[in-house]
Amino acid sequence: MLYSIILAGGSGTRLWPLSRAGHPKFLYALTGTERSLLEDTADRLAPLSTAQETYVVTGIAHAAAIARQLPHIPEENVLVEPLPRDSCAAIGLAAAVIARRDPEAVMGVFSADHLIGDRARFVETIERAAMVARRGRHVCTVGIEPTRPEEGFGYLQLGELIETGVRNVRQFTEKPKRELAQQYLESGEYLWNAGIFIVRAGTFLEELARYKPALCEALERIGAAWDTSRRDEVLAREWPELEKVSVDYAVMEPAAAAGRVVTVPAGFSWSDIGDFHSLGDSLPNDENGNLVIGDPTRTLLREVKSSVIVSTVGNRVIAVVGVEGLVVADTEDAVLVCPRNRAQEVKQIIETLRDCGLSEHT
Amino acid sequence: MLYSIILAGGSGTRLWPLSRAGHPKFLYALTGTERSLLEDTADRLAPLSTAQETYVVTGIAHAAAIARQLPHIPEENVLVEPLPRDSCAAIGLAAAVIARRDPEAVMGVFSADHLIGDRARFVETIERAAMVARRGRHVCTVGIEPTRPEEGFGYLQLGELIETGVRNVRQFTEKPKRELAQQYLESGEYLWNAGIFIVRAGTFLEELARYKPALCEALERIGAAWDTSRRDEVLAREWPELEKVSVDYAVMEPAAAAGRVVTVPAGFSWSDIGDFHSLGDSLPNDENGNLVIGDPTRTLLREVKSSVIVSTVGNRVIAVVGVEGLVVADTEDAVLVCPRNRAQEVKQIIETLRDCGLSEHT
Repeated sequence: MLYSIILAGGSGTRLWPLSRAGHPKFLYALTGTERSLLEDTADRLAPLSTAQETYVVTGIAHAAAIARQLPHIPEENVLVEPLPRDSCAAIGLAAAVIARRDPEAVMGVFSADHLIGDRARFVETIERAAMVARRGRHVCTVGIEPTRPEEGFGYLQLGELIETGVRNVRQFTEKPKRELAQQYLESGEYLWNAGIFIVRAGTFLEELARYKPALCEALERIGAAWDTSRRDEVLAREWPELEKVSVDYAVMEPAAAAGRVVTVPAGFSWSDIGDFHSLGDSLPNDENGNLVIGDPTRTLLREVKSSVIVSTVGNRVIAVVGVEGLVVADTEDAVLVCPRNRAQEVKQIIETLRDCGLSEHT
Repeated sequence: MLYSIILAGGSGTRLWPLSRAGHPKFLYALTGTERSLLEDTADRLAPLSTAQETYVVTGIAHAAAIARQLPHIPEENVLVEPLPRDSCAAIGLAAAVIARRDPEAVMGVFSADHLIGDRARFVETIERAAMVARRGRHVCTVGIEPTRPEEGFGYLQLGELIETGVRNVRQFTEKPKRELAQQYLESGEYLWNAGIFIVRAGTFLEELARYKPALCEALERIGAAWDTSRRDEVLAREWPELEKVSVDYAVMEPAAAAGRVVTVPAGFSWSDIGDFHSLGDSLPNDENGNLVIGDPTRTLLREVKSSVIVSTVGNRVIAVVGVEGLVVADTEDAVLVCPRNRAQEVKQIIETLRDCGLSEHT
């Protein structure tokens, strides 16, 4: 009844040194279990979509790893982009391909690297949104209660209730500046956009045609060729020329302004694992408030509190003594030590590494 | 004019994970230069002793590494103990071998892993002690102004001035309990023993014969055989049976009580590098009070103060953000993160690792 599209792209540098261009975070077991974020996402979607209804959009770098982590998904549902062209092209590709395969298709678009708490309530939320989306008049989003003036998210300004648990979105504002984000937070009128979109494939393409007609036409040509022998030829011609733009700017902001975006406030906890700090907040902690990812027998903590310790190398030992609120993340070729409240600064570290000619570590 | 004996033993676990049973600290460049502690020790002794007058006493594990780090020292001056038998046997072996080779020999005994500041004043101090030692009536020590109630050192109670810059030692107390160490510190009458002994080889053997006659006789038999074809045979018979005792308990305490120990107060700064904290205090720091050991281009510090960062692996990156007074020590198979003032707790970490079946990391 619902096509689930898992977006598995992005370099995930915010969890450096764990996530890299070559090793995005969705391949790692940052879930509190042995399942990777990608596997956890697929598990969470299983009650909503069959394997035949589940798609992944990814780049060439990770197609093989994804195919192995999700062996039940049909090969033809792994949509591999030749080059990264941002989220609008990724979602548009899925919409164009699926709309050809099933003109009535309703699709849910999900990130491969989000942590979500209560699965039953997640399913309930998505099913409610899918019912609205099926009618073809709206793009449905999922709204998260904001807890801080985060600049990296989209904000949904709540409008009138259009039916139980579904509200109109007056305005969609992607990545507001700090001051504006603070105003939104204080007003109580805004929710964060969870990066989940539920929409008929055809409706998405109509919206895209309205705001980005050239991009939409190119994607339609690609979609028409996808399941034919002309796929490679058309992709080679069209794909490199696609506009790089995020779906939030290209579609969501103008569609909301036109009154065609709604939201279902989420009944579940949600994290995009923006950094190690939020990872520590999102997963169960031990009795001292620590999150230990990796082999606990090789991680020696002595009077350590509220810290996030990430160990990824089988034959290494991590010994941490007498600290509080610290991140220690250890990988084959790098180790990061920083306070949790400065975990965002890995961005600057990556820039410095690149400036110093050490980009093989980024 | 002086035989310099470098004692290069000990497992050096206080600098774990850097130093190990297999990699004692004297082999590492913990000197603020590219020279290892052992090389730095040899450099410092060069104005006092020729290569022919310089000896090393070590175990079988490190003989090859030492021979390579100190290529100028004659092979017959590298005295290799078949088994560790503590410092009294190590010094006694050197005394017994050297006394046979030069009956008038005055020897200075030095640790391979101490950091010493002003080299000219070091040479002056040792030359003064050697002049006293040459007369054959005393064992000379070097005294360090104590700065804390350290339990791990020997304490020299100062007696009368016997000549310029040389004082009698009333009492030698090895490893006093904390409370006693505190009293010594407050009294102002005590100096730390720097672990440096200057004494005629023959005088040392006489003292040893007085307090540990069996040990002395065995060492004399070994010394008599050392430069003959019987060395291996005599060593095999005698060495395993030698009493394991430190020179401080066996000789220094009773010799001081008998009035035959003197000390020359040191005119130089001194550290036995008890832990990473004291390493940071002993070497020059950067403008933020940090000590960085290893390749600085692979060590990214961002608003880090008063910390000790040790990087030993060529192809790894260490990124540290926003911390103060922290130790981060990274090696091939382990990383330690702890506040400088808890750096002593690596002892407990090593115990825990052994208890957990991870002794290959200790």
